Amino acid sequence: MAKVNVSDSGTVGSSVLSLDSIRESLIRQEDTIVFSLIGRAQFPLNSPAFEGSPSLDSANSSSLTEFFVREIEFLQAKVGRYENPEENPFFLDNIPHSVFPTHKYPTALHPKALSVNINKQIWDVYFKELLPLFVKPGDDGNYPSTAASDLACLQALSRRIHYGKFVAEVKFRDAPQDYEPAIRAKDREALMKLLTFEKVEEMVKKRVQKKAETFGQEVKCISDSGDGSEKKYKVDPFLVSRIYGEWLIPLTKFVEVEYLLRRLD
Amino acid sequence: MAKVNVSDSGTVGSSVLSLDSIRESLIRQEDTIVFSLIGRAQFPLNSPAFEGSPSLDSANSSSLTEFFVREIEFLQAKVGRYENPEENPFFLDNIPHSVFPTHKYPTALHPKALSVNINKQIWDVYFKELLPLFVKPGDDGNYPSTAASDLACLQALSRRIHYGKFVAEVKFRDAPQDYEPAIRAKDREALMKLLTFEKVEEMVKKRVQKKAETFGQEVKCISDSGDGSEKKYKVDPFLVSRIYGEWLIPLTKFVEVEYLLRRLD
Repeated sequence: MAKVNVSDSGTVGSSVLSLDSIRESLIRQEDTIVFSLIGRAQFPLNSPAFEGSPSLDSANSSSLTEFFVREIEFLQAKVGRYENPEENPFFLDNIPHSVFPTHKYPTALHPKALSVNINKQIWDVYFKELLPLFVKPGDDGNYPSTAASDLACLQALSRRIHYGKFVAEVKFRDAPQDYEPAIRAKDREALMKLLTFEKVEEMVKKRVQKKAETFGQEVKCISDSGDGSEKKYKVDPFLVSRIYGEWLIPLTKFVEVEYLLRRLD
Repeated sequence: MAKVNVSDSGTVGSSVLSLDSIRESLIRQEDTIVFSLIGRAQFPLNSPAFEGSPSLDSANSSSLTEFFVREIEFLQAKVGRYENPEENPFFLDNIPHSVFPTHKYPTALHPKALSVNINKQIWDVYFKELLPLFVKPGDDGNYPSTAASDLACLQALSRRIHYGKFVAEVKFRDAPQDYEPAIRAKDREALMKLLTFEKVEEMVKKRVQKKAETFGQEVKCISDSGDGSEKKYKVDPFLVSRIYGEWLIPLTKFVEVEYLLRRLD
């Protein structure tokens, strides 16, 4: 397997980008995603937060959640968040400069392809399709905490999906001869085929289901002796597996294809 | 047991504040705290983020983390976070008005006592005592993500500790005759005794240790058959129990005492 040496900064712990290190990161990110979904599921849907409850400031017509995410992203840019190629903003067109000295992150991605950003699509999918699946309906008025939880979910999902850029880069460097013809032919279908490993996808879906069972259970002081009563979970584990299978994995592969299509530019 | 009716807003699910509902919330908050500690433990100490790496803007002499938390709090206030009596800011002296219509939270606390805020102390304890215990030493330069994780921990710990105000209110209303003499005598020691239930504290410590074992384990697709190899956790479960026993529980009781001392004003 090709190893991509990305250490141009002498940074501790980031000397080599390999498919193994990428897998390790994706596995760690599963925990973060499951934690964030469980965190969000504490609150009901609270749709007025993101469906445009009007601001009291007439100059601003966005929903509370959109206002919150826009402003947070601006602030996070000011402490250097988007210098990290793993992070992709939802709203920033022009990323403001950091007011603090920034870390030089390794440049592992192809310059002409690294700007792939499908956060607009992730935003829509999240609020229209995913959220209603895993939270209770209802409105408890607790919008500030809800927006903070939505941000945690959105950023965790976005990081995972855009990690496809690193996956694609390593796979390409590992076997450029396999990818180049399909890239030159702009053959999305062929690229998708090259990037699809059903066995791996099934394993990921099983593992996240198990993580949702483990992290979403009620932990009690005295062990449950298995009295036959049905276990309750904070988020339905099968649903987490579905979210991966129907949205996260396909969107990640979509990013991989988009990246590869620009890989020879 | 006295039940404090706090429904002055018709809010779903907040009609009655009882010791049971408070305990339920504290148990749910344990999950959030353990999740946030595990999230922070992904990064090394990264002390330059909070020990004053100077800003490039000469008007600002705070550390990256302090700058970040100050600005986030200002922004969160603008979406109404601090209308919720469960939330207490670290830095805001004057809380700016929300630019969105705000939720009317039930007023359960005594007006002269609700402003108890020990976040200055929590900040110091967190960075000087807790953080070095549960994260690896080192510096990987990833300060923006580290600051976001620190904020998640700080807010989760602060919410838990300041929940002492609700605990104290319900205990007081349950048996004012037990508390009034000690409050009038400003007898902190007597109040602390009235508020201490060692058995309950031991149970909490055991439960959070088990939560850290459960949530901080490596979840694999194939079940570990218990081959005798030592289990690895993302945060040492015993440490989480210690953090509760030596810091969180005593600080919560400190808030309870401070609140009660103002309860008859």
